[in-house]
Amino acid sequence: LNLPRTIAGLDTPALLIERSRLDANLAEMAALCARYGVRLRPHVKTHKCPAIAARQRALGAVGLCAAKVSEAAVFAAAGFDDLLVAYPLTGARKVAALRALPARVSTLADDVEGVRELDAAWSGEPLPVHVKVDVGLGRVGVRWDRPEAVVALAQAIDAAPNLRFAGLLTHAGHAYGAAPEDVARIGREEGERLVALAGAVRDAGLEVPSVSVGSTPTARHAVAVPGVTELRPGVYALNDANQVRLGVVPVERCALSVLTTVVSRPDPDRAFCDAGSKVFSSDRGAHGQAHGDHGLVVDRPDLRLVALSEEHGWLRGPARRGERLRVVPAHTCPVVNLAAEVWLVDGDDVLERWDVAARGCVR
Amino acid sequence: LNLPRTIAGLDTPALLIERSRLDANLAEMAALCARYGVRLRPHVKTHKCPAIAARQRALGAVGLCAAKVSEAAVFAAAGFDDLLVAYPLTGARKVAALRALPARVSTLADDVEGVRELDAAWSGEPLPVHVKVDVGLGRVGVRWDRPEAVVALAQAIDAAPNLRFAGLLTHAGHAYGAAPEDVARIGREEGERLVALAGAVRDAGLEVPSVSVGSTPTARHAVAVPGVTELRPGVYALNDANQVRLGVVPVERCALSVLTTVVSRPDPDRAFCDAGSKVFSSDRGAHGQAHGDHGLVVDRPDLRLVALSEEHGWLRGPARRGERLRVVPAHTCPVVNLAAEVWLVDGDDVLERWDVAARGCVR
Repeated sequence: LNLPRTIAGLDTPALLIERSRLDANLAEMAALCARYGVRLRPHVKTHKCPAIAARQRALGAVGLCAAKVSEAAVFAAAGFDDLLVAYPLTGARKVAALRALPARVSTLADDVEGVRELDAAWSGEPLPVHVKVDVGLGRVGVRWDRPEAVVALAQAIDAAPNLRFAGLLTHAGHAYGAAPEDVARIGREEGERLVALAGAVRDAGLEVPSVSVGSTPTARHAVAVPGVTELRPGVYALNDANQVRLGVVPVERCALSVLTTVVSRPDPDRAFCDAGSKVFSSDRGAHGQAHGDHGLVVDRPDLRLVALSEEHGWLRGPARRGERLRVVPAHTCPVVNLAAEVWLVDGDDVLERWDVAARGCVR
Repeated sequence: LNLPRTIAGLDTPALLIERSRLDANLAEMAALCARYGVRLRPHVKTHKCPAIAARQRALGAVGLCAAKVSEAAVFAAAGFDDLLVAYPLTGARKVAALRALPARVSTLADDVEGVRELDAAWSGEPLPVHVKVDVGLGRVGVRWDRPEAVVALAQAIDAAPNLRFAGLLTHAGHAYGAAPEDVARIGREEGERLVALAGAVRDAGLEVPSVSVGSTPTARHAVAVPGVTELRPGVYALNDANQVRLGVVPVERCALSVLTTVVSRPDPDRAFCDAGSKVFSSDRGAHGQAHGDHGLVVDRPDLRLVALSEEHGWLRGPARRGERLRVVPAHTCPVVNLAAEVWLVDGDDVLERWDVAARGCVR
């Protein structure tokens, strides 16, 4: 495929990743984990690109985290090992798909029925299974304030012949909907609640090989809690306007942007660009916690991206027909999921084209 | 590829299209247009499947409408002719891509600069160009209450050596955000405003070959306005929960559903399924006009799909872990855009597998 020398040679809309920002983001998280002696297992759902996972591995990542088996399969095929599928697999078909991956794998469970299904469909080397804990998001997992249920589930895993209890795992996704001043507290709670539960499991006589937390907003707060052993952030590689809103990073650390062309300007203060919800998604925040605009127009504080049709971005402000804009999206992960490829750039220079190899892996 | 006999053989999440409902929807719109002597030019953005476009053509569609050149290219490659790219093409690259399509094509413009660009980059047989009119959505197009600007733009197209004035075109997308009782009025206005403008253009001495309206909610109201010559609805082929909310169709006419498995049930009245925003999108209504839930759980009024994470649907109500649900999405088009394939079904029987050939065509 033809690689244009500069972004002027790219058709729009297109996704750009600024190399220096990507590398700074990856290096900072690796250094943070190294400082605390915590293992880093990046979640690939954000970038879905083996080329970025390779950079993460080179910086010391112990393995990868994926949301679905089919997503893990892309990285297994690309030669990555030690893949954690952080999802409650349900039904023998899903467990068989996990078994078929050409890599060491692990997963999680959040109830006894799930443990039974995993055990029934697995054989050979025992499958490492974490107990999924809900520390406040209110989604899947055993609630953190039910230590007896966490212990019972750990024991059920331990007692299953084909499974091995791998530790405790959580995701403080409620940080995405929080006020910026609450993020540090949520991060500390994420670590402290999980560490306390690990103590309860140990008191019941089980080893707890891993105490794994993960979310980009809470990472630097949870990692500092003694007893946390693993971090699974995803968004940190690219960042987005949500992370800026939450005070996690300045906008200069947002590596992903959408290159888009203004295609219509019916009024002096209203314009439309060629990237709509088929590029930005309609997601303005993780777990449906919407905040603010659909993106930040880079270097153009006079422009706002206030709404989306499928193929139109609705801009407020004095845009010119034909001008190109770079827009940092509200939420990176679903934007990458919509793209066939991303372009690694250094300012206006195009360096590489990467397939979004794990696009659309929903099974 | 293996075609399972029944949906029990499909891995989840998966998109199902109920054949009888699809065929009923297609037949009804074809009959409506035939009754009024209006040409039907379905918008392919909803289904993105040549197999469905072939059914539409067999029922008398005069051609197809596409949102972007790359979307039209998929249908040109599949042998479809007379493709209208209903988007303000901007820049010589886009016009060259349109020229390269192996089909008769047409497009639109909403300002004089766009007309100049089209004319400069075209040659040979004149390109048919419509004037895009904004009848109330507030997006691209010349406003309907500025007839002098509409006439001037039609004249500019007519005067351009490489272009041919093709008529007037609009999309009453504001119907999606309307109260059900306002849809009929919006549909009549859509037709009446465009017909009045066509009169103004004729008074200026130009022929108006086409007066083209298009949106599923307004279709049956706009089509009845004398002087309307073409209808370009898209959603009607599959329908969705928005159309039900707007009173356009009963839920029994929704042909698309998401087949999903309940993977976790932390509380008796809270559960999670394996289809999240990567399947449903986060779009609950066209043009960002959000209403209600993310979908309707078929035959389960006790369950609501109230929120989405990327891989989790948040259900309220008494679901069982492991059970499969069929969910009619809030807005069909972005759901299809996220899928690699759809399964044509007759109840529980799987009939065919169709590629979503025009998935992700954003350029």
